[in-house]
Amino acid sequence: MLFLANIQPDLQQQVRAQLPQARFVALDSMNLWIDIARDSLVAAIENVDCVILNDAELRQLTGKPNLVSAAREILSWTPAPGASPEGGRGPSVVVAKQGEYGAALVTREGFFALPAYPLESVIDPTGAGDTFAGGLVGYIAAHPDEQLSDELLRRAMAHATVLASFNVEEFGTERIVRLTGKEVAARIHELHAMTQFSGAPLQLRG
Amino acid sequence: MLFLANIQPDLQQQVRAQLPQARFVALDSMNLWIDIARDSLVAAIENVDCVILNDAELRQLTGKPNLVSAAREILSWTPAPGASPEGGRGPSVVVAKQGEYGAALVTREGFFALPAYPLESVIDPTGAGDTFAGGLVGYIAAHPDEQLSDELLRRAMAHATVLASFNVEEFGTERIVRLTGKEVAARIHELHAMTQFSGAPLQLRG
Repeated sequence: MLFLANIQPDLQQQVRAQLPQARFVALDSMNLWIDIARDSLVAAIENVDCVILNDAELRQLTGKPNLVSAAREILSWTPAPGASPEGGRGPSVVVAKQGEYGAALVTREGFFALPAYPLESVIDPTGAGDTFAGGLVGYIAAHPDEQLSDELLRRAMAHATVLASFNVEEFGTERIVRLTGKEVAARIHELHAMTQFSGAPLQLRG
Repeated sequence: MLFLANIQPDLQQQVRAQLPQARFVALDSMNLWIDIARDSLVAAIENVDCVILNDAELRQLTGKPNLVSAAREILSWTPAPGASPEGGRGPSVVVAKQGEYGAALVTREGFFALPAYPLESVIDPTGAGDTFAGGLVGYIAAHPDEQLSDELLRRAMAHATVLASFNVEEFGTERIVRLTGKEVAARIHELHAMTQFSGAPLQLRG
C-alpha cells in the first residue's frame, strides 16, 4: 500500500517506482503543482491507482467544467509507452474531496457520493483532507484479502469521512489520538442512517 | 398544500393566512429579504412548516456558522403569541439547497443529505432551485394519505433532486415539458444506487 501525499510530483514518481508491486497506490496533490509542474503531475498520476483531489483541483488539472467530466478525463489517462515497466494501467479511482459537502468517488464502474458527517462545531479544519486520505487508504490496507471493488471503496469512503469529522472537532491531532474503534463504528452507523432513503418513485394517480 | 415561492415576506404571510388549514406549507426566500426585511421574513417562517433556502442564506438568516446550527436555530422559532390564530407550531423542516453538491434535510428527528444527480453537461441552471422545491412539495402533495415523516420527506428530496437534474440539462423548461414518470423513476433508482454503502465498520485485527 502506498499513499503519495502532496509533494513535488517528480518525487512522488520516484517513491512510486520503489514500490512496483504495491497493491494500491493513491496520490494527493495541490494547485501549486498543477500550476508549475503539470506534466510531471500527469505522469505521476498515470502510474497510480487512485487520485485524491478537491473539486477545484480536479477541474484545474483537467480543464473540464465539472466533477464527472474531470474524473472521466483522469480515468482515461494511461502510462506513456515504456514509462511504466511494471505495466501500470492508469488510474482507476478518482476521489473528489468536497469539504463540508463530503466526498465523491468515480470509478469506471460507477459514481458514489457521501455527505460529510454534519458537525455543529468545527474547531480546526487543518489536516481534514490528510485524515480523509489516511482513512481511505488505511481501510483498504486493513482488508488485504478483498478485491479492490466499488463496494470496498465505498466502505473506505465512509471510514475516511468519519475519521476526518473527528479530526476537525479539536485542535491538531488531539481528538484522533484518543479516538476508539467503537466511536468510529458508531459514527459510521449514524452516517449510514443519514443517507438512507427509499428509491420508490412517485406513484402517479388517475 | 402551499408553496410560498420567493416574494416579499409580508406578501408571503398574507397568502399563508388565507390557507390556515394547509396540510404542508413551504417557504423559499433570498438574500435580498434577509437584508431589507428580516423581521418580516422571520415572522413568515414562524408560520410555515418547511423552509427551503441555500446554505449561504441559512447562515446569513441565522448568523450561525454552519448548516446544522443554522437549521437548529430555525427549528427553534415559534410564532409570537397571537401571531398565529391557527395555532402554528413553527417550522419543523429545514431544507438546504447546495447546488451541485445536492441538498440536506434537517428535522427535529434527524439529518439527511443527498448528493445532486451527477451530470456531465449542465446547459441552463436557471430554475433548478424552483424545480427542486416544486418537486419536493409536489411529491408530498401526491401522497395525501401519508403522515409527514422523515421517511416521506427523504423520498420527496430524492424526487426533487432528480427533477432538478433534468431541468438543468436543457434550456428553460424544455426538458421538463416532455419528461415522463418512467424517466424520473429510472433516475431515482440510479441516485439510490449511487448513495448506498455498507455501514459495516473496520474490523481491527490482532
